[in-house]
Amino acid sequence: MKDTLKIGLLGLGTVGTGVLTLLKEHQEKISQVTGMNVVIEKAFVRNLETKQAQAEEYGLSLTTSIDDILEDKEIQIVVELMGTIEPAKTYIMKALEKGKHIVTANKDLLAQHGSELVALAQKHHCDLYYEASVAGGIPILRTIANSLAADNIQQVLGIVNGTTNYMLTQMVSADKSYEEALAEAQALGFAEADPTNDVDGIDAAYKMVILSQFAFGMNVSLPQVDIRGIRGLSLDDVAMAKQLGYEIKLIGSAEQNENSISVEVAPMLVNQKHPIASVRNEYNAVFIKSAGVGESMYYGPGAGAKPTATSVVSDLITIAKNIRLATTGHMFNSYQHKTQLTSSENVFGQYYFSLDVPDTPGQFLQLTQLMTKAEVSFDQLVQQKSDGQRARIVAITHQISKAQMQQVVIAIQNTEAFQLLNVMKVIGDE
Amino acid sequence: MKDTLKIGLLGLGTVGTGVLTLLKEHQEKISQVTGMNVVIEKAFVRNLETKQAQAEEYGLSLTTSIDDILEDKEIQIVVELMGTIEPAKTYIMKALEKGKHIVTANKDLLAQHGSELVALAQKHHCDLYYEASVAGGIPILRTIANSLAADNIQQVLGIVNGTTNYMLTQMVSADKSYEEALAEAQALGFAEADPTNDVDGIDAAYKMVILSQFAFGMNVSLPQVDIRGIRGLSLDDVAMAKQLGYEIKLIGSAEQNENSISVEVAPMLVNQKHPIASVRNEYNAVFIKSAGVGESMYYGPGAGAKPTATSVVSDLITIAKNIRLATTGHMFNSYQHKTQLTSSENVFGQYYFSLDVPDTPGQFLQLTQLMTKAEVSFDQLVQQKSDGQRARIVAITHQISKAQMQQVVIAIQNTEAFQLLNVMKVIGDE
Repeated sequence: MKDTLKIGLLGLGTVGTGVLTLLKEHQEKISQVTGMNVVIEKAFVRNLETKQAQAEEYGLSLTTSIDDILEDKEIQIVVELMGTIEPAKTYIMKALEKGKHIVTANKDLLAQHGSELVALAQKHHCDLYYEASVAGGIPILRTIANSLAADNIQQVLGIVNGTTNYMLTQMVSADKSYEEALAEAQALGFAEADPTNDVDGIDAAYKMVILSQFAFGMNVSLPQVDIRGIRGLSLDDVAMAKQLGYEIKLIGSAEQNENSISVEVAPMLVNQKHPIASVRNEYNAVFIKSAGVGESMYYGPGAGAKPTATSVVSDLITIAKNIRLATTGHMFNSYQHKTQLTSSENVFGQYYFSLDVPDTPGQFLQLTQLMTKAEVSFDQLVQQKSDGQRARIVAITHQISKAQMQQVVIAIQNTEAFQLLNVMKVIGDE
Repeated sequence: MKDTLKIGLLGLGTVGTGVLTLLKEHQEKISQVTGMNVVIEKAFVRNLETKQAQAEEYGLSLTTSIDDILEDKEIQIVVELMGTIEPAKTYIMKALEKGKHIVTANKDLLAQHGSELVALAQKHHCDLYYEASVAGGIPILRTIANSLAADNIQQVLGIVNGTTNYMLTQMVSADKSYEEALAEAQALGFAEADPTNDVDGIDAAYKMVILSQFAFGMNVSLPQVDIRGIRGLSLDDVAMAKQLGYEIKLIGSAEQNENSISVEVAPMLVNQKHPIASVRNEYNAVFIKSAGVGESMYYGPGAGAKPTATSVVSDLITIAKNIRLATTGHMFNSYQHKTQLTSSENVFGQYYFSLDVPDTPGQFLQLTQLMTKAEVSFDQLVQQKSDGQRARIVAITHQISKAQMQQVVIAIQNTEAFQLLNVMKVIGDE
């Protein structure tokens, strides 16, 4: 007769239901791998009635009082699937103080209060796992923590928001406008009614904060991430990028420069030959460049009940094994490094500029002079279209620093005749 | 003062040197993660003189006597990087009998004698890790064992041989012939002087045997894998595939059907929209379709000294942690299932047939009749080119069983006027 490992669930939405289903379907396999019967004992919900049928189906009890779970000594693991900061944070902290291990999919919480929770888990010798918080079904955190421990990661590029990637794929491959693509993503249930967190890059930034912690051992805070979303991206830029051999993607980028890192989220031009360019629709991918392995990429669904539940259950299995082997209390990510940010003089990249200029002689010259002053040279320079009055010029620079890019932006903005339409980083050209 | 974990190395070629370099470069990080100083103490080599300078650089001793390592009680882990079956197998078995943990990159050995070695490791409570044996730098075995433990894998598609993928990429994108592509792969050091193992699909088959063990818990032997390589693949088929929207790739495929699996290696037509179609040159990728996560893919370099060494070192770190926590002796892959193979009546797929037929009326009809008799219907049917005497017909079927495919092949071969040029499975169309 095997031991039973009892779990308390906070929140019984689609992911919670997915966890129940997976544990039931894979009961035998999980018991074989962990040596225990892993069972959800209780679920904390807001409304007992709406969840009653489900509770009966899976044989668990429901409660609207958090203490029923926190004070239950037999419950060894708490799975938090409520989302947002409060009350999730308070509940997790109380559970840790009671010596319960935690699995959570809460990216907002981990990105903003991760260090505090990790420290508390350490203090109480508890496990705290959150694989599902980044890129849903892709086991990227575990991969970085375990398999790349002997490597030196130089760059992490992530398509870590499925909603915006779906929208961009539709804009690129079906010539849909930003508004049409957003409406479609909302109709399909990818985007919320208020799409701010997705389209403004905030959701992606949360995930990049967590990824940076794993890849570089550094705790970057959200205000230290340069964030720009895809709101209002024009089809002109999308078409121009395509014509030049690029796809526009919302990229979360974290790069190391000696002992410092820079983290940003922005729409970028990705060379069509770069592996991350082929990531379509709602899929996510994390591309890693490292000294040992070289280039690797991890691709899969970034959201959805089943993929997220799969990551939650693999965290549960990890903790179950740790409990059995009496090895709990080790950090999910034990790699720690002093956090230092790269100054904009030392962040390098190629940049795409698109400008609206008067269709008169001398505009190319003026732009060239302005760029030369910032010591910026071109890789490509294209005049795209003209209505006889105004023309559109697109320039892709060679490698320049972010500071130089900013200098050029200011110079363009100070040139009355020029209107700056967009600036985006270009990746994958080397 | 931290404990020192001493390692014996068998073979000091490029991968062995890579391991030494990584351990040196990441000394601090590894010591932080494992709580120990991980040190290569001795290396077993054939020729002392040629390796002397290297030994001095890394401060290790050399020996030409295997017993110097096997009998050294302070050496807790043996890393085998000699390749081929013997004497590697004997040395690993002796080391396990002495209670030493093993890391190896030896795919031939694991594919052919894996169960025996795993059982011996179990008997002596030793760890046996071999992440580097499949897909070099991609941590795919660990991912399946840990992160997909709560999932139900239905299909594994692998581009697991870099040499042939490089050749095929050159044939597709640069219109090079098979012979030219092979010569180029050899010049770049990807292909051996005798390329048999690569081009005939044997290397890929070894890796699929190991992957099947992890994905389905089943021990498939090499003779149970249907193996066909890319030797002599014609540019006509490559061009035709491209025109129809496919890339020809050497795919290792393992598929589950209820409680049985089928494993094969063959050139297949991959729909250009399938993620694995975009894997270029010497890169490897493993695409997994599973009930929980859905579609995921793991991409990276399949070979090379540094990527392979990175996987070896991550295995070393895993064992170091296990030793520290006194949790050694657990199987790398603990998922076990009764091995059962799917009969060819129950393996389904779409197939591409290319035929050379007389350029006379009635050929399409005859082919259609023959297919209809086997209850096979077409998705696409194209007459490609004709010299007035002979024409080339290409057909892509709907989903049929492998048995039906074989029936059609026999019927075509028995039709005197028809010459069957090629048959390949088609993937990614659903």
